[in-house]
Amino acid sequence: MAIQKPGIPKGTRDFSPQETAGRNYIFKTVQDVFHLFGFQSIETPAMENLSTLMGKYGEEGDRLIFRILNSGDFLSKVNDTDLNNKDSLKLSSQISEKALRYDLTVPFARYVVQYQNEITFPFRRYQIQAVWRADRPQKGRYREFYQCDVDMIGSNSLLNETELVQIIDMVFNKLGIRVAVKINNRKILAGIADLIGAPEMIVPITVAIDKLDKIGLDGVIAELKEKQLSNSAIDALLPVLNLSGNFQEKLDQLSLILKESETGMKGVEEMITLKGLLDAVSFNCEIELDLTLARGLNYYTGAIFEVKALDVAMGSICGGGRYDDLTGIFGLKGMSGVGVSFGADRIYDVLNELSLFPEQAGHFTTVLFANFGDKELKYCMALADACRKEGIGCEIYPDNTKMKKQLGYADDKKIPYVALVGEQEMASGLIGLKKLATGEQKTVSLQQMISELKTNN
Amino acid sequence: MAIQKPGIPKGTRDFSPQETAGRNYIFKTVQDVFHLFGFQSIETPAMENLSTLMGKYGEEGDRLIFRILNSGDFLSKVNDTDLNNKDSLKLSSQISEKALRYDLTVPFARYVVQYQNEITFPFRRYQIQAVWRADRPQKGRYREFYQCDVDMIGSNSLLNETELVQIIDMVFNKLGIRVAVKINNRKILAGIADLIGAPEMIVPITVAIDKLDKIGLDGVIAELKEKQLSNSAIDALLPVLNLSGNFQEKLDQLSLILKESETGMKGVEEMITLKGLLDAVSFNCEIELDLTLARGLNYYTGAIFEVKALDVAMGSICGGGRYDDLTGIFGLKGMSGVGVSFGADRIYDVLNELSLFPEQAGHFTTVLFANFGDKELKYCMALADACRKEGIGCEIYPDNTKMKKQLGYADDKKIPYVALVGEQEMASGLIGLKKLATGEQKTVSLQQMISELKTNN
Repeated sequence: MAIQKPGIPKGTRDFSPQETAGRNYIFKTVQDVFHLFGFQSIETPAMENLSTLMGKYGEEGDRLIFRILNSGDFLSKVNDTDLNNKDSLKLSSQISEKALRYDLTVPFARYVVQYQNEITFPFRRYQIQAVWRADRPQKGRYREFYQCDVDMIGSNSLLNETELVQIIDMVFNKLGIRVAVKINNRKILAGIADLIGAPEMIVPITVAIDKLDKIGLDGVIAELKEKQLSNSAIDALLPVLNLSGNFQEKLDQLSLILKESETGMKGVEEMITLKGLLDAVSFNCEIELDLTLARGLNYYTGAIFEVKALDVAMGSICGGGRYDDLTGIFGLKGMSGVGVSFGADRIYDVLNELSLFPEQAGHFTTVLFANFGDKELKYCMALADACRKEGIGCEIYPDNTKMKKQLGYADDKKIPYVALVGEQEMASGLIGLKKLATGEQKTVSLQQMISELKTNN
Repeated sequence: MAIQKPGIPKGTRDFSPQETAGRNYIFKTVQDVFHLFGFQSIETPAMENLSTLMGKYGEEGDRLIFRILNSGDFLSKVNDTDLNNKDSLKLSSQISEKALRYDLTVPFARYVVQYQNEITFPFRRYQIQAVWRADRPQKGRYREFYQCDVDMIGSNSLLNETELVQIIDMVFNKLGIRVAVKINNRKILAGIADLIGAPEMIVPITVAIDKLDKIGLDGVIAELKEKQLSNSAIDALLPVLNLSGNFQEKLDQLSLILKESETGMKGVEEMITLKGLLDAVSFNCEIELDLTLARGLNYYTGAIFEVKALDVAMGSICGGGRYDDLTGIFGLKGMSGVGVSFGADRIYDVLNELSLFPEQAGHFTTVLFANFGDKELKYCMALADACRKEGIGCEIYPDNTKMKKQLGYADDKKIPYVALVGEQEMASGLIGLKKLATGEQKTVSLQQMISELKTNN
């Protein structure tokens, strides 16, 4: 067979031991916090039926779904006209009935409906799995990436929203990342749309408001005029543009501005309740009311969340919101849920940029036993066995090669200690223990070695 | 949109919180042991280039690879003749250039070659990821399943084989599963083939030997004759069929039987060395020399391993061997490796059948704070916050509903304690703590509750 140059599909990644360890550190931190709040993990298959996924992510989303080619003679039953017309779109659904999941939300909705009789509601689940999108690969955007989703479904209580902020706070506190949690409410945005009588303008409006700091009030007004917002609508919007102060002060102003909109006032009331609950506990993160947050407008119905790292220029590293009808499409009505998704890839980049990964992540070997030959090897195997039974990660260099090579191996793998056991040590029952960082070497008993390695690692 | 009946592709599975917890318990146990032996984790993408996978698993394997349909107008460049002939086979490689990985071994070989200049050899890596096969689904056979592979590559030392047996022993000891580790050597099988002058008969021979216990020597001989093995070959084979005794005794007999075969004697020598190394440490598992082991004959070149559970009728739950030329196809020669793969699905079934899963696996909530209304809720949020900071998993029931419903929730989720904090408790600063298993209830301070929950879980 010809020799192949090894490579992987564009937009996908291999993860080295160090990268995998960094990612696992993130997953473990997130999971530990989820567990403290009583969330349990589910997993769903990488492949879903095409019908489960199609039509859930808009036209653009449908295009980005990776389809699995049917096995066997997949062309035998296709429509000849579509085939002869080379109609890729029409043919694709005839030769493919499965696809890779695009996110974790739709599979979760499917799961909840499918197992509704076995699930204890309110259902607190998290899910950490890969998703796939046939997006054009670019810096920070991949075709395979992990999502860490945490959702509570089957309860309208705003305690759920509060706990999500607590979870976000605890996760980023444990990771050492300073963050701001931005909160908005879909109903308040709907209220603003009522106010100006132009619901279709709500996204351009949030985009424009977002530039207030940069281009000033006049700039924002100019931009809105450009986008065909009427003068009267802009006048109605002015109080929103002039909104200022902290969370509570903004809420006070909004309850005046939106008093004519029933939906808007419902949003304000939700935010007042949420604020009251947030005040019952303490936070390390900044919490802001941010009307420019407009993510997921086509499915979020209440709170909208977004988390930004304060010390790195980076997009949102976590986000989510409340959705009142996630499971409706699969036949289960009236099941409200709220959740957020942690962006593992961006969090990885933030930790990397700020050098916040713990130094020992991914390094499990505390001591390397040098290999001096067969007799010594067997002697060391028993020592290593005793260390491992005490929970100490050990390696024995497998070959009797030059000491320089063996020490180089320890260095490369960041193994802090090397145990040197030659004939003399075997005779005395002692071990030469060398600390690589300092070069310091001493002669110890097995018990002394075990206790030193336990305390120093 | 029409309502869809929720379902998943055949051969795939959803994992409930309890199932996920059971699987994570297995993965965690395996990982902890891998770490004690200095193995590090890598991850590779779910999709590989089709060219990486094709031709590596035989014709049958190629057929079972799940292909990803190219995105966009995938028909635009296909060969018209192949299209008009509805030639699925020829078309498939024109409309698909990526596929889901079929195992973890080929991606590992690809990884080693691709990153050979960054890897520290000998490279000790493990990999726990899903693989996909378009197999006909049946009991215990799935289209998506996890493999837990552990390999050392770049060293010929038989210490590696020994450590794999140690790892197997420690994993199943931690899981509480009694096992037998069966070991064979490809070179010994080659020696037997030399002996009888019929290398192509080696698989039928191992199959026949395997039936010795059931059908006796005469039965085996009859079967071999049926398979056209000559009388002289059967005569030559007789000493192998009569092999008896323990590991060492079998080795002693083999070194006489195979003395004319250079390869066979090399295999015997390897096994003698391995036996010497195995004797340097102690094992809980049974270790057997089993000449009927014939897995992976087309790629294993030295040791062959298989692990059977002793207390459950179940196929092999772990297996592997030494391969001398795994990376050759990707252009890197002379890189010998040895590894085993743990079968997570079968191990799950064994643990389930023997009721060996730890009771608390997947249950992280120690106490549920009952919800008596807004004031009490806010009070309890601070208490729960204090508990979580001590590492105690807590939930607060999100809605102020009937106590029966709240207690039922705790019951369903196997939460052992419920904290009852009403107006009276708020006034006294104390907490009513109910242990659900016994119904016992007492009034305690927050500090008392924290220390009780810490010691009882």
